[in-house]
Amino acid sequence: PSSVRNMSTLSLEEKQNDEKLVQPDSTSGNAGGNKDEKRVVSYWGIQASKVTKPDGTEWKWNCFMPWETYKSDLSIDLKKHHAPVTFMDKMAYWTVKALRFPTDIFFQRRYGCRAMMLETVAAVPGMVGGMLLHCKSLRRFEHSGGWIKALLEEAENERMHLMTFMEVAKPRWYERALMFAVQGVFFNAYFLGYLLSPKFAHRMVGYLEEEAIHSYTEFLKELDKGNIENVPAPAIAIDYWQLPPDSTLRDVVMVVRADEAHHRDVNHFASDIHYQGKELREAPAPIGYH
Amino acid sequence: PSSVRNMSTLSLEEKQNDEKLVQPDSTSGNAGGNKDEKRVVSYWGIQASKVTKPDGTEWKWNCFMPWETYKSDLSIDLKKHHAPVTFMDKMAYWTVKALRFPTDIFFQRRYGCRAMMLETVAAVPGMVGGMLLHCKSLRRFEHSGGWIKALLEEAENERMHLMTFMEVAKPRWYERALMFAVQGVFFNAYFLGYLLSPKFAHRMVGYLEEEAIHSYTEFLKELDKGNIENVPAPAIAIDYWQLPPDSTLRDVVMVVRADEAHHRDVNHFASDIHYQGKELREAPAPIGYH
Ligand SMILES: [Fe+2]
Ligand SMILES: [Fe+2]
Ligand SMILES: [Fe+2]
Ligand SMILES: [Fe+2]
Repeated sequence: PSSVRNMSTLSLEEKQNDEKLVQPDSTSGNAGGNKDEKRVVSYWGIQASKVTKPDGTEWKWNCFMPWETYKSDLSIDLKKHHAPVTFMDKMAYWTVKALRFPTDIFFQRRYGCRAMMLETVAAVPGMVGGMLLHCKSLRRFEHSGGWIKALLEEAENERMHLMTFMEVAKPRWYERALMFAVQGVFFNAYFLGYLLSPKFAHRMVGYLEEEAIHSYTEFLKELDKGNIENVPAPAIAIDYWQLPPDSTLRDVVMVVRADEAHHRDVNHFASDIHYQGKELREAPAPIGYH
Repeated sequence: PSSVRNMSTLSLEEKQNDEKLVQPDSTSGNAGGNKDEKRVVSYWGIQASKVTKPDGTEWKWNCFMPWETYKSDLSIDLKKHHAPVTFMDKMAYWTVKALRFPTDIFFQRRYGCRAMMLETVAAVPGMVGGMLLHCKSLRRFEHSGGWIKALLEEAENERMHLMTFMEVAKPRWYERALMFAVQGVFFNAYFLGYLLSPKFAHRMVGYLEEEAIHSYTEFLKELDKGNIENVPAPAIAIDYWQLPPDSTLRDVVMVVRADEAHHRDVNHFASDIHYQGKELREAPAPIGYH
Protein backbone atom coordinates (compact mmCIF):
# COMPACT_ATOMS: atom_id res chain seq x y z
CA PRO A 1 0.00 0.00 0.00
CA SER A 2 2.78 2.42 0.81
CA SER A 3 3.93 2.32 -2.81
CA VAL A 4 1.20 4.82 -3.65
CA ARG A 5 2.44 7.59 -1.42
CA ASN A 6 6.01 7.14 -2.53
CA MET A 7 5.11 8.11 -6.05
CA SER A 8 5.86 11.53 -7.28
CA THR A 9 3.71 12.40 -10.25
CA LEU A 10 6.41 12.14 -12.84
CA SER A 11 8.21 9.04 -11.78
CA LEU A 12 5.03 7.08 -12.28
CA GLU A 13 6.48 5.06 -15.12
CA GLU A 14 9.43 3.90 -13.04
CA LYS A 15 7.25 3.15 -10.09
CA GLN A 16 5.02 0.90 -12.14
CA ASN A 17 8.10 -1.15 -12.94
CA ASP A 18 8.81 -1.57 -9.27
CA GLU A 19 8.62 -5.00 -7.81
CA LYS A 20 8.50 -5.15 -4.08
CA LEU A 21 11.24 -7.47 -2.92
CA VAL A 22 9.75 -7.95 0.51
CA GLN A 23 6.12 -7.89 1.45
CA PRO A 24 5.40 -5.77 4.52
CA ASP A 25 4.74 -7.91 7.53
CA SER A 26 1.88 -6.52 9.52
CA THR A 27 2.66 -7.90 12.97
CA SER A 28 3.10 -4.70 14.92
CA GLY A 29 3.73 -3.75 18.50
CA ASN A 30 7.06 -5.44 18.95
CA ALA A 31 10.59 -4.47 18.11
CA GLY A 32 11.07 -7.06 15.39
CA GLY A 33 14.03 -9.39 15.07
CA ASN A 34 16.98 -7.06 14.99
CA LYS A 35 19.33 -9.83 13.99
CA ASP A 36 17.52 -10.59 10.76
CA GLU A 37 17.64 -7.71 8.33
CA LYS A 38 14.78 -9.05 6.29
CA ARG A 39 12.41 -9.01 9.25
CA VAL A 40 13.38 -5.49 10.26
CA VAL A 41 12.80 -4.35 6.73
CA SER A 42 9.38 -5.92 6.77
CA TYR A 43 8.50 -4.52 10.12
CA TRP A 44 9.08 -0.90 9.17
CA GLY A 45 7.71 -1.32 5.68
CA ILE A 46 10.92 0.10 4.20
CA GLN A 47 11.78 -2.07 1.27
CA ALA A 48 14.27 -1.59 -1.48
CA SER A 49 12.30 -1.45 -4.68
CA LYS A 50 13.73 -2.76 -7.90
CA VAL A 51 14.41 0.04 -10.32
CA THR A 52 15.18 -0.69 -13.95
CA LYS A 53 16.97 1.23 -16.68
CA PRO A 54 14.95 2.35 -19.69
CA ASP A 55 16.32 -0.73 -21.52
CA GLY A 56 14.94 -3.04 -18.85
CA THR A 57 18.21 -4.02 -17.15
CA GLU A 58 18.56 -3.57 -13.42
CA TRP A 59 19.54 -0.17 -12.04
CA LYS A 60 22.65 -0.65 -9.95
CA TRP A 61 22.96 2.70 -8.14
CA ASN A 62 21.35 3.72 -4.90
CA CYS A 63 22.88 7.17 -4.81
CA PHE A 64 21.00 8.45 -7.86
CA MET A 65 17.93 7.31 -9.74
CA PRO A 66 17.31 7.15 -13.51
CA TRP A 67 15.12 10.26 -13.33
CA GLU A 68 17.96 12.26 -11.74
CA THR A 69 20.38 11.65 -14.60
CA TYR A 70 20.81 14.18 -17.37
CA LYS A 71 22.54 14.97 -20.62
CA SER A 72 25.19 17.60 -20.20
CA ASP A 73 25.03 20.74 -22.33
CA LEU A 74 28.55 20.95 -23.70
CA SER A 75 27.73 24.24 -25.43
CA ILE A 76 27.96 26.12 -22.13
CA ASP A 77 30.34 29.11 -22.34
CA LEU A 78 33.58 28.02 -20.66
CA LYS A 79 35.21 31.45 -20.86
CA LYS A 80 32.78 33.55 -18.86
CA HIS A 81 34.61 35.33 -16.09
CA HIS A 82 33.60 37.70 -13.37
CA ALA A 83 36.11 40.54 -13.43
CA PRO A 84 36.73 41.43 -9.77
CA VAL A 85 35.84 45.06 -9.17
CA THR A 86 35.16 45.60 -5.50
CA PHE A 87 37.72 44.95 -2.80
CA MET A 88 35.74 41.93 -1.64
CA ASP A 89 35.70 40.44 -5.14
CA LYS A 90 39.46 40.92 -5.40
CA MET A 91 39.95 39.26 -2.06
CA ALA A 92 37.87 36.29 -3.19
CA TYR A 93 39.80 36.15 -6.46
CA TRP A 94 43.25 36.26 -4.87
CA THR A 95 42.31 33.80 -2.13
CA VAL A 96 41.49 31.27 -4.84
CA LYS A 97 44.62 32.12 -6.84
CA ALA A 98 46.74 31.71 -3.71
CA LEU A 99 45.19 28.31 -3.03
CA ARG A 100 46.28 27.19 -6.49
CA PHE A 101 50.00 27.37 -5.66
CA PRO A 102 50.20 24.57 -3.09
CA THR A 103 47.76 22.52 -5.18
CA ASP A 104 49.88 22.89 -8.32
CA ILE A 105 53.02 21.92 -6.42
CA PHE A 106 51.43 18.95 -4.70
CA PHE A 107 49.78 17.39 -7.74
CA GLN A 108 51.94 18.65 -10.60
CA ARG A 109 50.54 16.96 -13.73
CA ARG A 110 48.66 14.16 -11.96
CA TYR A 111 45.29 15.50 -13.06
CA GLY A 112 43.38 12.37 -12.11
CA CYS A 113 44.38 12.65 -8.45
CA ARG A 114 44.01 16.38 -8.57
CA ALA A 115 40.44 16.09 -9.86
CA MET A 116 39.63 13.65 -7.09
CA MET A 117 40.95 15.89 -4.35
CA LEU A 118 39.35 18.96 -5.88
CA GLU A 119 35.95 17.30 -5.85
CA THR A 120 36.21 16.30 -2.20
CA VAL A 121 36.56 19.98 -1.38
CA ALA A 122 34.11 21.18 -4.03
CA ALA A 123 31.25 19.20 -2.51
CA VAL A 124 31.46 21.17 0.75
CA PRO A 125 30.22 24.70 -0.09
CA GLY A 126 26.87 23.60 -1.55
CA MET A 127 26.15 21.50 1.52
CA VAL A 128 27.15 24.25 3.97
CA GLY A 129 25.21 26.93 2.10
CA GLY A 130 22.14 24.73 1.71
CA MET A 131 22.19 23.80 5.38
CA LEU A 132 22.54 27.39 6.56
CA LEU A 133 19.70 28.56 4.30
CA HIS A 134 17.57 25.66 5.55
CA CYS A 135 18.13 26.67 9.18
CA LYS A 136 17.51 30.31 8.33
CA SER A 137 14.23 29.45 6.62
CA LEU A 138 13.15 27.53 9.75
CA ARG A 139 14.23 30.22 12.16
CA ARG A 140 12.64 33.08 10.30
CA PHE A 141 9.53 31.27 9.13
CA GLU A 142 10.18 32.33 5.56
CA HIS A 143 10.47 30.71 2.16
CA SER A 144 13.80 30.01 0.55
CA GLY A 145 12.98 30.65 -3.11
CA GLY A 146 14.31 27.21 -4.02
CA TRP A 147 17.92 28.05 -3.12
CA ILE A 148 18.24 25.34 -0.48
CA LYS A 149 17.54 22.74 -3.12
CA ALA A 150 19.74 24.44 -5.72
CA LEU A 151 22.76 24.46 -3.38
CA LEU A 152 22.19 20.92 -2.11
CA GLU A 153 21.93 19.74 -5.72
CA GLU A 154 25.26 21.38 -6.45
CA ALA A 155 26.80 19.54 -3.49
CA GLU A 156 25.36 16.24 -4.67
CA ASN A 157 26.59 16.85 -8.21
CA GLU A 158 30.13 17.48 -6.92
CA ARG A 159 29.92 14.31 -4.86
CA MET A 160 29.01 12.39 -8.01
CA HIS A 161 32.11 13.87 -9.64
CA LEU A 162 34.11 12.40 -6.78
CA MET A 163 32.37 9.01 -7.02
CA THR A 164 33.32 9.02 -10.71
CA PHE A 165 36.99 10.00 -10.41
CA MET A 166 37.39 7.56 -7.53
CA GLU A 167 36.92 4.79 -10.09
CA VAL A 168 39.73 6.13 -12.24
CA ALA A 169 42.33 7.18 -9.66
CA LYS A 170 42.47 5.22 -6.42
CA PRO A 171 43.54 7.51 -3.55
CA ARG A 172 46.66 6.53 -1.60
CA TRP A 173 46.69 6.48 2.20
CA TYR A 174 48.47 9.84 2.60
CA GLU A 175 46.07 11.43 0.14
CA ARG A 176 43.18 10.13 2.21
CA ALA A 177 44.79 11.52 5.34
CA LEU A 178 45.33 14.85 3.63
CA MET A 179 41.68 15.02 2.53
CA PHE A 180 40.57 14.33 6.07
CA ALA A 181 42.50 17.35 7.30
CA VAL A 182 41.58 19.58 4.37
CA GLN A 183 37.88 18.83 4.77
CA GLY A 184 38.00 19.61 8.47
CA VAL A 185 39.60 22.97 7.88
CA PHE A 186 37.66 23.92 4.76
CA PHE A 187 34.25 22.92 6.12
CA ASN A 188 34.67 25.10 9.18
CA ALA A 189 36.23 27.98 7.30
CA TYR A 190 33.44 27.99 4.72
CA PHE A 191 30.80 27.64 7.42
CA LEU A 192 32.14 30.69 9.19
CA GLY A 193 32.68 32.56 5.93
CA TYR A 194 29.10 31.91 4.82
CA LEU A 195 27.76 33.15 8.14
CA LEU A 196 29.82 36.33 7.91
CA SER A 197 29.35 37.06 4.23
CA PRO A 198 27.43 34.86 1.80
CA LYS A 199 28.33 37.46 -0.84
CA PHE A 200 32.02 36.69 -0.41
CA ALA A 201 31.44 32.94 -0.04
CA HIS A 202 29.51 32.58 -3.29
CA ARG A 203 31.97 34.79 -5.15
CA MET A 204 34.83 32.65 -3.96
CA VAL A 205 33.11 29.48 -5.10
CA GLY A 206 32.51 31.17 -8.46
CA TYR A 207 36.25 31.70 -8.78
CA LEU A 208 37.02 28.18 -7.53
CA GLU A 209 34.82 26.89 -10.34
CA GLU A 210 36.67 29.04 -12.85
CA GLU A 211 39.88 27.36 -11.68
CA ALA A 212 38.20 23.97 -11.89
CA ILE A 213 37.33 24.63 -15.53
CA HIS A 214 40.96 25.55 -16.17
CA SER A 215 42.18 22.46 -14.38
CA TYR A 216 39.89 20.18 -16.42
CA THR A 217 41.01 21.88 -19.62
CA GLU A 218 44.61 20.98 -18.70
CA PHE A 219 43.42 17.45 -17.95
CA LEU A 220 41.97 17.25 -21.46
CA LYS A 221 45.25 18.47 -22.98
CA GLU A 222 47.20 15.76 -21.16
CA LEU A 223 44.70 13.18 -22.36
CA ASP A 224 45.06 14.39 -25.94
CA LYS A 225 48.85 14.36 -25.70
CA GLY A 226 48.65 10.77 -24.47
CA ASN A 227 50.32 11.57 -21.13
CA ILE A 228 47.24 10.26 -19.37
CA GLU A 229 45.64 7.11 -20.71
CA ASN A 230 42.15 7.63 -22.11
CA VAL A 231 40.59 4.66 -20.32
CA PRO A 232 36.95 3.65 -20.79
CA ALA A 233 34.48 5.73 -18.77
CA PRO A 234 33.43 4.20 -15.43
CA ALA A 235 29.95 2.65 -15.42
CA ILE A 236 28.68 5.20 -12.91
CA ALA A 237 29.59 8.08 -15.24
CA ILE A 238 27.84 6.45 -18.20
CA ASP A 239 24.64 6.15 -16.19
CA TYR A 240 24.82 9.52 -14.46
CA TRP A 241 25.41 11.64 -17.59
CA GLN A 242 23.53 9.34 -19.97
CA LEU A 243 26.71 8.78 -21.98
CA PRO A 244 26.99 6.26 -24.82
CA PRO A 245 28.32 2.88 -23.59
CA ASP A 246 31.66 3.26 -25.42
CA SER A 247 32.51 6.62 -23.78
CA THR A 248 35.99 7.31 -22.45
CA LEU A 249 37.59 9.29 -19.65
CA ARG A 250 37.83 12.22 -22.07
CA ASP A 251 34.04 12.31 -22.46
CA VAL A 252 33.67 12.23 -18.69
CA VAL A 253 36.04 15.17 -18.20
CA MET A 254 34.08 17.10 -20.82
CA VAL A 255 30.75 16.72 -19.01
CA VAL A 256 32.30 17.36 -15.61
CA ARG A 257 33.81 20.58 -16.93
CA ALA A 258 30.39 21.65 -18.22
CA ASP A 259 28.98 21.01 -14.74
CA GLU A 260 31.68 23.23 -13.25
CA ALA A 261 30.83 26.02 -15.68
CA HIS A 262 27.28 25.72 -14.51
CA HIS A 263 28.28 25.96 -10.84
CA ARG A 264 30.35 29.02 -11.69
CA ASP A 265 27.27 30.72 -13.15
CA VAL A 266 25.04 29.80 -10.21
CA ASN A 267 27.52 31.02 -7.60
CA HIS A 268 28.49 34.26 -9.30
CA PHE A 269 24.76 34.87 -9.79
CA ALA A 270 24.12 34.21 -6.09
CA SER A 271 26.86 36.66 -5.17
CA ASP A 272 25.43 39.24 -7.57
CA ILE A 273 22.04 38.94 -5.86
CA HIS A 274 23.71 39.76 -2.53
CA TYR A 275 25.57 42.64 -4.19
CA GLN A 276 22.19 44.09 -5.06
CA GLY A 277 21.39 44.14 -1.38
CA LYS A 278 18.87 41.35 -1.77
CA GLU A 279 18.59 37.96 -0.21
CA LEU A 280 18.79 34.84 -2.34
CA ARG A 281 15.15 33.97 -1.75
CA GLU A 282 14.12 37.20 -3.49
CA ALA A 283 15.40 35.85 -6.82
CA PRO A 284 14.00 32.48 -7.85
CA ALA A 285 16.69 29.82 -7.80
CA PRO A 286 17.72 27.90 -10.90
CA ILE A 287 15.51 24.83 -10.83
CA GLY A 288 16.23 21.34 -12.10
CA TYR A 289 19.85 22.37 -12.64
CA HIS A 290 22.79 20.18 -11.79
CA PRO B 1 20.96 26.55 -25.12
CA SER B 2 21.45 25.75 -21.45
CA SER B 3 17.88 24.56 -21.26
CA VAL B 4 18.98 21.20 -22.67
CA ARG B 5 21.34 20.30 -19.89
CA ASN B 6 18.92 21.38 -17.21
CA MET B 7 16.48 18.71 -18.19
CA SER B 8 16.22 15.61 -16.19
CA THR B 9 14.77 12.79 -18.22
CA LEU B 10 11.43 12.65 -16.53
CA SER B 11 10.61 16.29 -16.22
CA LEU B 12 10.69 16.61 -19.99
CA GLU B 13 7.02 17.39 -20.22
CA GLU B 14 7.30 20.31 -17.80
CA LYS B 15 10.40 21.59 -19.44
CA GLN B 16 8.71 21.75 -22.81
CA ASN B 17 6.19 24.07 -21.24
CA ASP B 18 8.95 26.35 -20.10
CA GLU B 19 9.13 29.79 -21.53
CA LYS B 20 12.34 31.59 -20.95
CA LEU B 21 11.57 34.91 -19.37
CA VAL B 22 14.90 36.40 -20.25
CA GLN B 23 17.09 35.53 -23.18
CA PRO B 24 20.72 34.96 -22.24
CA ASP B 25 22.87 37.88 -23.24
CA SER B 26 26.15 36.67 -24.68
CA THR B 27 28.41 39.64 -24.01
CA SER B 28 31.02 38.08 -21.81
CA GLY B 29 34.25 39.13 -20.15
CA ASN B 30 32.88 41.82 -17.89
CA ALA B 31 31.19 41.82 -14.58
CA GLY B 32 27.79 42.84 -15.89
CA GLY B 33 25.60 45.58 -14.49
CA ASN B 34 25.25 44.64 -10.87
CA LYS B 35 22.59 47.24 -10.31
CA ASP B 36 20.21 45.80 -12.89
CA GLU B 37 18.97 42.36 -11.91
CA LYS B 38 17.79 41.57 -15.39
CA ARG B 39 21.26 42.10 -16.86
CA VAL B 40 22.93 40.01 -14.18
CA VAL B 41 20.44 37.27 -14.79
CA SER B 42 21.21 37.39 -18.49
CA TYR B 43 24.93 37.52 -17.99
CA TRP B 44 25.12 34.30 -15.99
CA GLY B 45 22.46 32.58 -18.03
CA ILE B 46 20.46 31.81 -14.89
CA GLN B 47 16.88 32.45 -15.72
CA ALA B 48 13.74 31.61 -13.88
CA SER B 49 11.72 29.39 -16.14
CA LYS B 50 7.96 29.49 -16.14
CA VAL B 51 6.54 26.30 -14.77
CA THR B 52 2.87 25.49 -15.14
CA LYS B 53 0.50 23.22 -13.25
CA PRO B 54 -1.00 20.25 -15.07
CA ASP B 55 -4.12 22.38 -15.66
CA GLY B 56 -2.03 25.06 -17.40
CA THR B 57 -2.16 27.73 -14.69
CA GLU B 58 1.08 29.22 -13.46
CA TRP B 59 3.07 27.40 -10.78
CA LYS B 60 3.57 29.81 -7.90
CA TRP B 61 6.13 27.99 -5.73
CA ASN B 62 9.89 28.12 -6.03
CA CYS B 63 10.56 25.82 -3.10
CA PHE B 64 9.04 22.75 -4.74
CA MET B 65 8.16 21.79 -8.27
CA PRO B 66 5.09 19.98 -9.61
CA TRP B 67 7.09 16.77 -10.05
CA GLU B 68 8.08 16.82 -6.37
CA THR B 69 4.50 16.79 -5.12
CA TYR B 70 2.78 13.58 -4.11
CA LYS B 71 -0.40 12.00 -2.89
CA SER B 72 -0.15 10.91 0.69
CA ASP B 73 -0.88 7.30 1.59
CA LEU B 74 -3.32 7.66 4.44
CA SER B 75 -3.43 3.90 4.94
CA ILE B 76 -0.02 3.93 6.65
CA ASP B 77 -0.09 2.18 10.03
CA LEU B 78 -0.22 4.93 12.68
CA LYS B 79 0.15 2.56 15.62
CA LYS B 80 3.49 0.95 14.89
CA HIS B 81 5.80 1.38 17.81
CA HIS B 82 9.33 0.33 18.57
CA ALA B 83 9.27 -1.19 22.03
CA PRO B 84 12.50 -0.01 23.70
CA VAL B 85 14.55 -3.04 24.71
CA THR B 86 18.18 -2.00 25.11
CA PHE B 87 19.35 0.63 27.56
CA MET B 88 20.08 2.99 24.68
CA ASP B 89 16.56 2.60 23.28
CA LYS B 90 15.10 3.30 26.68
CA MET B 91 17.26 6.39 27.00
CA ALA B 92 16.05 7.64 23.61
CA TYR B 93 12.45 6.89 24.58
CA TRP B 94 12.58 8.67 27.93
CA THR B 95 14.47 11.65 26.52
CA VAL B 96 11.59 12.20 24.13
CA LYS B 97 8.98 11.61 26.80
CA ALA B 98 10.75 14.11 29.07
CA LEU B 99 10.77 16.70 26.29
CA ARG B 100 7.00 16.39 26.07
CA PHE B 101 6.40 17.86 29.52
CA PRO B 102 7.59 21.41 28.92
CA THR B 103 6.02 21.32 25.43
CA ASP B 104 2.64 20.25 26.81
CA ILE B 105 2.78 22.97 29.45
CA PHE B 106 3.87 25.69 27.04
CA PHE B 107 1.32 25.01 24.31
CA GLN B 108 -1.53 23.35 26.21
CA ARG B 109 -4.28 22.84 23.60
CA ARG B 110 -2.98 25.34 21.02
CA TYR B 111 -2.21 22.62 18.51
CA GLY B 112 -1.72 24.98 15.58
CA CYS B 113 1.15 26.79 17.32
CA ARG B 114 2.43 23.54 18.69
CA ALA B 115 2.58 22.01 15.23
CA MET B 116 4.46 25.02 13.92
CA MET B 117 7.09 24.88 16.64
CA LEU B 118 7.39 21.13 16.38
CA GLU B 119 8.12 21.38 12.67
CA THR B 120 10.86 23.97 13.15
CA VAL B 121 12.66 21.45 15.32
CA ALA B 122 11.67 18.42 13.23
CA ALA B 123 13.42 19.79 10.14
CA VAL B 124 16.81 19.76 11.87
CA PRO B 125 17.72 16.04 12.27
CA GLY B 126 17.37 15.16 8.57
CA MET B 127 19.59 18.06 7.59
CA VAL B 128 22.24 17.28 10.19
CA GLY B 129 22.25 13.56 9.38
CA GLY B 130 22.33 14.16 5.63
CA MET B 131 25.17 16.64 5.98
CA LEU B 132 27.25 14.34 8.17
CA LEU B 133 26.75 11.40 5.81
CA HIS B 134 27.67 13.65 2.88
CA CYS B 135 30.93 14.67 4.55
CA LYS B 136 31.65 11.07 5.50
CA SER B 137 31.13 9.90 1.95
CA LEU B 138 33.58 12.56 0.74
CA ARG B 139 36.20 11.83 3.39
CA ARG B 140 36.10 8.08 2.98
CA PHE B 141 35.64 8.01 -0.79
CA GLU B 142 32.67 5.70 -0.43
CA HIS B 143 29.08 5.57 -1.60
CA SER B 144 26.21 6.51 0.65
CA GLY B 145 23.56 4.02 -0.48
CA GLY B 146 21.13 6.88 -1.11
CA TRP B 147 20.84 7.79 2.57
CA ILE B 148 22.08 11.35 2.13
CA LYS B 149 19.19 12.04 -0.19
CA ALA B 150 16.69 10.17 1.97
CA LEU B 151 17.58 12.24 5.05
CA LEU B 152 17.71 15.55 3.19
CA GLU B 153 14.31 14.78 1.69
CA GLU B 154 12.98 14.20 5.19
CA ALA B 155 14.33 17.60 6.26
CA GLU B 156 12.76 19.28 3.27
CA ASN B 157 9.44 17.56 3.90
CA GLU B 158 9.47 18.81 7.50
CA ARG B 159 10.27 22.30 6.28
CA MET B 160 7.23 22.11 3.99
CA HIS B 161 5.14 21.17 7.03
CA LEU B 162 6.37 24.36 8.64
CA MET B 163 5.69 26.46 5.54
CA THR B 164 2.15 25.05 5.62
CA PHE B 165 1.36 25.62 9.32
CA MET B 166 2.88 29.10 9.10
CA GLU B 167 -0.10 30.04 6.91
CA VAL B 168 -2.56 28.86 9.55
CA ALA B 169 -0.95 30.06 12.76
CA LYS B 170 1.17 33.20 12.67
CA PRO B 171 3.98 33.00 15.21
CA ARG B 172 4.18 35.74 17.84
CA TRP B 173 7.44 37.55 18.59
CA TYR B 174 8.24 35.58 21.75
CA GLU B 175 7.55 32.33 19.92
CA ARG B 176 10.00 33.37 17.22
CA ALA B 177 12.57 34.23 19.87
CA LEU B 178 11.99 30.88 21.54
CA MET B 179 12.47 29.03 18.23
CA PHE B 180 15.73 30.85 17.65
CA ALA B 181 17.08 29.58 20.97
CA VAL B 182 15.62 26.09 20.61
CA GLN B 183 17.12 25.67 17.15
CA GLY B 184 20.54 26.78 18.32
CA VAL B 185 20.54 24.26 21.16
CA PHE B 186 18.89 21.41 19.30
CA PHE B 187 21.02 21.71 16.15
CA ASN B 188 24.23 21.47 18.12
CA ALA B 189 22.97 18.76 20.42
CA TYR B 190 21.78 16.63 17.52
CA PHE B 191 25.00 17.28 15.60
CA LEU B 192 27.06 16.02 18.52
CA GLY B 193 24.64 13.19 19.18
CA TYR B 194 24.80 12.01 15.59
CA LEU B 195 28.58 12.07 15.65
CA LEU B 196 28.68 10.04 18.85
CA SER B 197 25.90 7.58 18.06
CA PRO B 198 23.78 7.63 14.90
CA LYS B 199 22.06 4.57 16.36
CA PHE B 200 20.78 6.64 19.28
CA ALA B 201 20.07 9.70 17.13
CA HIS B 202 17.84 7.85 14.66
CA ARG B 203 16.05 5.98 17.44
CA MET B 204 15.31 9.26 19.17
CA VAL B 205 13.91 10.77 15.97
CA GLY B 206 11.80 7.63 15.58
CA TYR B 207 10.29 8.28 19.01
CA LEU B 208 9.91 12.00 18.29
CA GLU B 209 7.88 11.06 15.22
CA GLU B 210 5.72 8.72 17.34
CA GLU B 211 4.99 11.73 19.57
CA ALA B 212 4.29 13.86 16.51
CA ILE B 213 1.70 11.33 15.34
CA HIS B 214 0.08 11.47 18.78
CA SER B 215 0.14 15.26 18.77
CA TYR B 216 -1.53 15.44 15.32
CA THR B 217 -4.14 12.92 16.44
CA GLU B 218 -5.00 15.28 19.33
CA PHE B 219 -5.09 18.15 16.83
CA LEU B 220 -7.66 16.18 14.78
CA LYS B 221 -9.77 15.55 17.89
CA GLU B 222 -9.83 19.29 18.68
CA LEU B 223 -10.82 20.02 15.09
CA ASP B 224 -13.64 17.47 15.26
CA LYS B 225 -14.86 18.88 18.57
CA GLY B 226 -14.91 22.32 16.99
CA ASN B 227 -12.40 23.78 19.47
CA ILE B 228 -10.15 24.65 16.54
CA GLU B 229 -11.77 26.08 13.44
CA ASN B 230 -11.50 23.85 10.39
CA VAL B 231 -10.34 26.60 8.02
CA PRO B 232 -9.73 26.00 4.31
CA ALA B 233 -6.36 24.40 3.52
CA PRO B 234 -3.61 26.88 2.57
CA ALA B 235 -2.79 26.98 -1.17
CA ILE B 236 0.71 25.63 -0.59
CA ALA B 237 -0.70 22.49 1.06
CA ILE B 238 -3.15 21.87 -1.77
CA ASP B 239 -0.31 21.98 -4.29
CA TYR B 240 2.26 20.07 -2.25
CA TRP B 241 0.02 17.10 -1.36
CA GLN B 242 -2.10 17.24 -4.50
CA LEU B 243 -5.23 17.83 -2.42
CA PRO B 244 -8.62 18.69 -3.89
CA PRO B 245 -9.19 22.49 -4.04
CA ASP B 246 -11.87 22.44 -1.34
CA SER B 247 -9.66 20.71 1.26
CA THR B 248 -9.59 21.91 4.83
CA LEU B 249 -7.11 22.10 7.68
CA ARG B 250 -8.31 18.66 8.76
CA ASP B 251 -7.20 17.13 5.45
CA VAL B 252 -3.83 18.84 5.83
CA VAL B 253 -3.31 17.45 9.33
CA MET B 254 -4.21 13.99 8.01
CA VAL B 255 -1.50 14.03 5.31
CA VAL B 256 1.07 15.61 7.62
CA ARG B 257 0.43 12.86 10.15
CA ALA B 258 0.96 10.23 7.44
CA ASP B 259 4.30 11.89 6.61
CA GLU B 260 5.31 11.68 10.25
CA ALA B 261 4.44 7.97 10.34
CA HIS B 262 6.70 7.57 7.34
CA HIS B 263 9.57 9.41 9.05
CA ARG B 264 9.07 7.18 12.08
CA ASP B 265 9.53 4.09 9.91
CA VAL B 266 12.61 5.45 8.14
CA ASN B 267 14.35 6.49 11.36
CA HIS B 268 13.59 3.35 13.36
CA PHE B 269 14.77 1.38 10.32
CA ALA B 270 18.00 3.42 10.19
CA SER B 271 18.59 2.76 13.87
CA ASP B 272 17.90 -0.96 13.35
CA ILE B 273 20.56 -1.06 10.62
CA HIS B 274 23.07 0.35 13.09
CA TYR B 275 21.91 -2.16 15.69
CA GLN B 276 22.88 -4.89 13.27
CA GLY B 277 26.42 -3.51 13.32
CA LYS B 278 26.07 -2.22 9.78
CA GLU B 279 26.41 1.20 8.29
CA LEU B 280 23.45 2.86 6.61
CA ARG B 281 25.04 2.63 3.17
CA GLU B 282 24.97 -1.18 3.42
CA ALA B 283 21.17 -1.16 3.26
CA PRO B 284 19.69 0.67 0.30
CA ALA B 285 17.83 3.79 1.40
CA PRO B 286 14.12 4.25 0.79
CA ILE B 287 13.95 6.05 -2.52
CA GLY B 288 11.44 8.55 -3.75
CA TYR B 289 9.96 8.69 -0.25
CA HIS B 290 8.88 11.88 1.45
FE1 LIG C 1 33.19 19.10 -9.60
FE1 LIG D 1 31.96 22.63 -9.29
FE1 LIG E 1 6.54 17.26 10.33
FE1 LIG F 1 8.44 14.07 10.97
